[in-house]
Amino acid sequence: MVFWKKLFSNSDTVATSETTEYSRELFNSDAQDFAQPQIIFSTERDINLYELEELCDRVGWARRPLRKVKKAINHSFLVVSMWEVQGKKRRLIGFARATSDHAFNATIWDVVVDPNFQGRGLGKAMMKYTISQLRSEDISNITLFADPQVVKFYQRLGFILDPEGIKGMFWYPD
Amino acid sequence: MVFWKKLFSNSDTVATSETTEYSRELFNSDAQDFAQPQIIFSTERDINLYELEELCDRVGWARRPLRKVKKAINHSFLVVSMWEVQGKKRRLIGFARATSDHAFNATIWDVVVDPNFQGRGLGKAMMKYTISQLRSEDISNITLFADPQVVKFYQRLGFILDPEGIKGMFWYPD
Repeated sequence: MVFWKKLFSNSDTVATSETTEYSRELFNSDAQDFAQPQIIFSTERDINLYELEELCDRVGWARRPLRKVKKAINHSFLVVSMWEVQGKKRRLIGFARATSDHAFNATIWDVVVDPNFQGRGLGKAMMKYTISQLRSEDISNITLFADPQVVKFYQRLGFILDPEGIKGMFWYPD
Repeated sequence: MVFWKKLFSNSDTVATSETTEYSRELFNSDAQDFAQPQIIFSTERDINLYELEELCDRVGWARRPLRKVKKAINHSFLVVSMWEVQGKKRRLIGFARATSDHAFNATIWDVVVDPNFQGRGLGKAMMKYTISQLRSEDISNITLFADPQVVKFYQRLGFILDPEGIKGMFWYPD
C-alpha cells in the first residue's frame, strides 16, 4: 500500500496522501517511536479482501462473495480503513465505505470496528474521518441506515433520525 | 437521444436498447399510430438539464446548480426518465436516479413525476421500471429515503419501512 511506504518515510515532503496528513494528527508521539501502537486511517482502496473478511467475521457478519465485495469497493466513492500500527506490523481494525453521486448525496455502508478495539472512541474517530473526507468533496447530504443498537452512536456524531419525517425504506427481492 | 431515433424506426431489429424494449410493452397501440400519446421509459442519461429543471420546478423543488446536477447524473448508477410521446413531440414527465456500489446496494434519489401526470399509476410504473433495471444488474438491496407523504406509495411497491428497526439517518453541515 502506498500509504504504508509513506508512513515510514522520514521526509515531510511526501505527506501528500490524505492518510499521511490525517495520521499525523492522530500520532501522539514521534513517528519514529515504534514501541507504542498507533492508529491510522486511510482512504486507500487496495484492501486485502481476506483481512477484511476476517474483520467482518469478528463482528459476526454473514460472509459475502469476495468477488462482489471487490466490485463494491471499486465502485464506492470513498473507502475508509482503520489500522493499528506497531513497529512494522499493521492490522486492519476498522472499515467503512460510501456510495455517492459525487455531487449531493453519499450513503455510508459496511461500518465495522474490531470488537477488541471498541469502546475507545475509535469508531467515532473513524466516522469523523469519513465525514471529513466526504465534506472535503463537497458532499452535503450524508446518509446511512443504522441498526437499532447504533442509532445513538450516530446521533452523538450529529446524524439525525428521520429528519422532517423522512423515512428509510428497503426493497428486497422475494 | 438515441432512443428517440429508435422509437421512430420501423425496423424491429434496432430494438436493442432497454428503452425500446420496455416501451414496446407499454405501447397499447401500433407504433405507427401517432394520434394517441404514449408513455415511454428510458435509461439514457443524456437528459436536457433545463427540461429536468422545469420538471422539478413543477413539483416545487428548490433549484440546484445545473453543474452539480450534471455531475450527479453522470455519477449515478442508473438514470430513469419517463416521457410522453405524441407524434414527433416528446415531453419529460418523470425522473429518478440511483447511486450504487454496483454489487450489493442501490439508493434511489430525486424521484419526480409531473403533477399533471400524477394519479394515473405512472409513478408506480416508473418505480417498477427502476426496480427492474436495478434487479437486472443483480442489486438486491434497494433503498431510498421517503418523505412522509410518499411512504405509503413506496409501501405499495414493496418497500419496507425501517426493516428490523433499521433507521434512515442524515448528517448535514452546520
